Amino acid sequence: MSYTAPLKDMLFNIRHLADIDAVARLPGFEDAGFDTAQAVLEEAAKFNEGVLAPLNWEGDRNPSSFKDGEVTTTPGFKQAFRQFAEGGWQGLQHPVEFGGQGLPKTIGAACIEMCNSANMSFALCPLLSDGAIEALLTAGSDELKAVYLEKLVSGQWTGTMNLTEPQAGSDLAMVRSRAEPQADGRYKVFGTKIFITYGEHDMAENIVHLVLARVVGAPEGVKGISLFVVPKFLVNSDGSLGARNDVHCVSIEHKLGIKASPTAVLQYGDQGGATGFLVGQENRGLEYMFIMMNAARYAVGVQGIALAERAYQKAVQFAKDRVQSRPVDGSIAASAPIIHHPDVRRMLMTMRAYSEGCRAMATVAAAAYDASHHHTDAEVRRQNQAFYEFLVPLIKGYSTEMSLEVASLGVQVHGGMGFIEETGAAQYLRDAKILAIYEGTTAIQANDLVGRKTARDGGQTARAIAQQVAAAEADLRAQGGDHALAVAQRLQAAREAFLDAVDFVVAGSRTCPNAVYAGSVPYLMLAGNLVAGWQMGRALLAAESCLAKGEDAAFMQAKIVTARFYADHLLSKAPGLRNSIVEGADSVTALALEAF
Amino acid sequence: MSYTAPLKDMLFNIRHLADIDAVARLPGFEDAGFDTAQAVLEEAAKFNEGVLAPLNWEGDRNPSSFKDGEVTTTPGFKQAFRQFAEGGWQGLQHPVEFGGQGLPKTIGAACIEMCNSANMSFALCPLLSDGAIEALLTAGSDELKAVYLEKLVSGQWTGTMNLTEPQAGSDLAMVRSRAEPQADGRYKVFGTKIFITYGEHDMAENIVHLVLARVVGAPEGVKGISLFVVPKFLVNSDGSLGARNDVHCVSIEHKLGIKASPTAVLQYGDQGGATGFLVGQENRGLEYMFIMMNAARYAVGVQGIALAERAYQKAVQFAKDRVQSRPVDGSIAASAPIIHHPDVRRMLMTMRAYSEGCRAMATVAAAAYDASHHHTDAEVRRQNQAFYEFLVPLIKGYSTEMSLEVASLGVQVHGGMGFIEETGAAQYLRDAKILAIYEGTTAIQANDLVGRKTARDGGQTARAIAQQVAAAEADLRAQGGDHALAVAQRLQAAREAFLDAVDFVVAGSRTCPNAVYAGSVPYLMLAGNLVAGWQMGRALLAAESCLAKGEDAAFMQAKIVTARFYADHLLSKAPGLRNSIVEGADSVTALALEAF
Repeated sequence: MSYTAPLKDMLFNIRHLADIDAVARLPGFEDAGFDTAQAVLEEAAKFNEGVLAPLNWEGDRNPSSFKDGEVTTTPGFKQAFRQFAEGGWQGLQHPVEFGGQGLPKTIGAACIEMCNSANMSFALCPLLSDGAIEALLTAGSDELKAVYLEKLVSGQWTGTMNLTEPQAGSDLAMVRSRAEPQADGRYKVFGTKIFITYGEHDMAENIVHLVLARVVGAPEGVKGISLFVVPKFLVNSDGSLGARNDVHCVSIEHKLGIKASPTAVLQYGDQGGATGFLVGQENRGLEYMFIMMNAARYAVGVQGIALAERAYQKAVQFAKDRVQSRPVDGSIAASAPIIHHPDVRRMLMTMRAYSEGCRAMATVAAAAYDASHHHTDAEVRRQNQAFYEFLVPLIKGYSTEMSLEVASLGVQVHGGMGFIEETGAAQYLRDAKILAIYEGTTAIQANDLVGRKTARDGGQTARAIAQQVAAAEADLRAQGGDHALAVAQRLQAAREAFLDAVDFVVAGSRTCPNAVYAGSVPYLMLAGNLVAGWQMGRALLAAESCLAKGEDAAFMQAKIVTARFYADHLLSKAPGLRNSIVEGADSVTALALEAF
Repeated sequence: MSYTAPLKDMLFNIRHLADIDAVARLPGFEDAGFDTAQAVLEEAAKFNEGVLAPLNWEGDRNPSSFKDGEVTTTPGFKQAFRQFAEGGWQGLQHPVEFGGQGLPKTIGAACIEMCNSANMSFALCPLLSDGAIEALLTAGSDELKAVYLEKLVSGQWTGTMNLTEPQAGSDLAMVRSRAEPQADGRYKVFGTKIFITYGEHDMAENIVHLVLARVVGAPEGVKGISLFVVPKFLVNSDGSLGARNDVHCVSIEHKLGIKASPTAVLQYGDQGGATGFLVGQENRGLEYMFIMMNAARYAVGVQGIALAERAYQKAVQFAKDRVQSRPVDGSIAASAPIIHHPDVRRMLMTMRAYSEGCRAMATVAAAAYDASHHHTDAEVRRQNQAFYEFLVPLIKGYSTEMSLEVASLGVQVHGGMGFIEETGAAQYLRDAKILAIYEGTTAIQANDLVGRKTARDGGQTARAIAQQVAAAEADLRAQGGDHALAVAQRLQAAREAFLDAVDFVVAGSRTCPNAVYAGSVPYLMLAGNLVAGWQMGRALLAAESCLAKGEDAAFMQAKIVTARFYADHLLSKAPGLRNSIVEGADSVTALALEAF
């Protein structure tokens, strides 16, 4: 059950698809060129392969446990988190002024993928800390920053996001937790939060909860929600830990997967009120939370890629080892390793193509994020921002749905052994299912894609992306050869399908919202498929160019046929999705409610 | 977590798609008309809803356990199995002369679906007994039949299938268990069998193992495999139980799902040899085993339908109860039950359309099975046999793959709650994954479909089915109206895609087997999709006709829009699959082995 970081693929993407040289020309990232990327990734691979990966299975067998208000994490996790913190991994992308390393997301995202491949349950803790850091950086007062940021960035403390309540899941308008202003400017926070990842644990000295609640008298709905910092332990003026705050874990969930990651029910204010500190202004909590959410959504998409990669590696290993039946082509006259069977190849190639396609998409998005924050030209920043924001729901929605399919194929490659828990393949399937749910279900991502990302600008960003795809098709045709031409053809069909869907979404989002939202998830899957397939097309071109220069022929040839597979077997789904979206809306909502 | 048998849908299929009146004209089935079907199904519903369904969740929480060679099943299972046996449910489809009820499969299949919806882990025990009965009926000597059949049919004893060994899963040529002939005509059996469902349990007095083993000196490969009866307890000449046989359970597996169903490792012959009785002739074991397998494969397909139905019902209930967010069309000015959200509808309709489509396919196949065994005209028998055999891999392969997708959607409808085990939706996902694996993985079904069912007769059966689909298209066009015309159009596209794939398979199965088998699973999915969609088209026509007669308007209208949904959202995948199969073969096997 070992894991080997796909460094070659990551560095190929960083160099050829994300153009790390351009990232390193951005102010603040002067030292973040290819060599830095390589050095950081190699170091990350060592840590994740050596320290975190071996604990993944143990976390599933021996999950976090709850007793008397306290959570004990899987043996080894506490020590591993210390190593993680000491290695500086929590601060990778965070500002130098708070102790971080200030690296671009283009590099950081690859490290986060490795961490999640190695141990997704573990990686959730730093993932949530990242969100808390992001929110404080954007909206926190200087005082809050001074008290909390350095310790969060160093990994001495960890962070959480507290949104969900029993009656308020996707629907944050229904948040009922309340905050009462105090004379000293602080607030007393009351309420019950559920599904709080690492809401209680023993891996760090303090836990910094970021909590959505309504200030007494605030407007109803999402416009009356504020964001508060509620630390587990209050912090003295010298930075030392003070009194225990009135937030307590009352239970943790018994879940299908990510079992090592404690999912807490937190009770605020049962003993007079938890002391909270307002982040930014009252009633702007949702806006700030979206900062955390968008960072987290990208990261969850990366979790999908990470899980798919790990499941793929495990399936490949099994397929090479397991001897069963003769190959149909008679090439071996005895029972052979099952990797010689075409359907096993099809499954492995599907897993591989999905992982590589989504990784390419995420890497390119990361570079756009870096440019959107650091480029000197406002128009370039704006364009990159629009591109990045369009991609976030695709990365979250498409990469997580694909990870479920990939993990399921991983079990399938193992046959009956896959169904036995000790084999380890089933854990990835169980773990994967949460990815399409938390930080906004696939439907919530699809709503975002339809409403904010497509309809709001009249389809402008979507069509600009299609134009870039068309340019890649032209490049592929110019390149020539079977593979490039086949990829160009599938890309064209997928792009045309996408454009039809964009027209449908833009035309109908106000006038016939039921019809548009009936196809919202298929639209997301079509868009994600196209963008990942486009990046695979670009990867093919880059690989051809490297081949011509004599670079790493084995890797480049593999990239080319993987791109071809992506086009033939995954992009080929696009026209069918177009038909579902554009022509199939009526039948989604036609059944009478009573008939269900 | 209750279950309500979909009696209306089952009886609609039995009457209008499977033509129960025609079944009742077959010799031996004179009493098995619609009224009988209705009476039997209603009785089955009562038993399964009332007795088995409430034990399903308990079986997951409190699985079968192993200690000192013995297996204790979930509390309640033993008593429930007594009730099952006393109700005569084990003997439903078995011959009257051995105490069965001799009902047609057309009726029996619906009962088996209910049993599996109610409690799949439980239902596996009678499913395996059915296989053992079938094998003994076909190949057993009169003596073996006399000793074993009545008690298996009554449910006093249960049966198992022992194929798999650690090195022999899909590849039965590698079976190593051996049988030594004794002077008295019996055999001593030695070996280790794994993955034996209900290989040991406490629900019946005796367990009748049907075991594949090699007689000493037999040829290598599958031509040297014989089939033996090895009872847990030897049977005295008066039918009473005698000595404990030398077959022992050494452990049971810790599995992803179907946890109540004990999956045993059985050790044969550690104390001198297990006494075995040859079934039929030496070296014909695989042939007999295929009789059991084909019955079991059909039944596993029905398990997929059953699980999908249960997952659907649970998701519908949650979607009606859970209040979250306003509908996008503004039809309700407050947070509403999530069934009002288009994407939730899309998920529920997908679950429903898959379940209904596969149920229709399985019901029609059951009627063909009945005709293939009971029709007086040999040519009609032959045609029905060919049709049935073509459908078995579709029912097994397509219905089980769809059940996994449906169960996953079921979790998704529940959002975060779906990931919590106590909600119960996750159990269906965990349970579903085995269905695409046991009794031959989807790839094994696809090999069967490509090799034995399509290439062997030069595509004749496949094309005959396509002709029947074309006739349904013509009927739909003659019917007219938006729904019928849309279904006809999608059916045509799917049929044309299928025919292209058939041509590809027939042309290449010998000359380029790698290319054909690279697309074998997509071909199976395409064929299953088409046949299920075709039956939904026929169902639409029948529903229109019933509507015109004023029968049950609500049900008929629901059937019509569900058929339309099937066409728009599921059949629409067919052309993409065609492209993968016909144009995508090369990229499946192009990657160098070392590049994985």
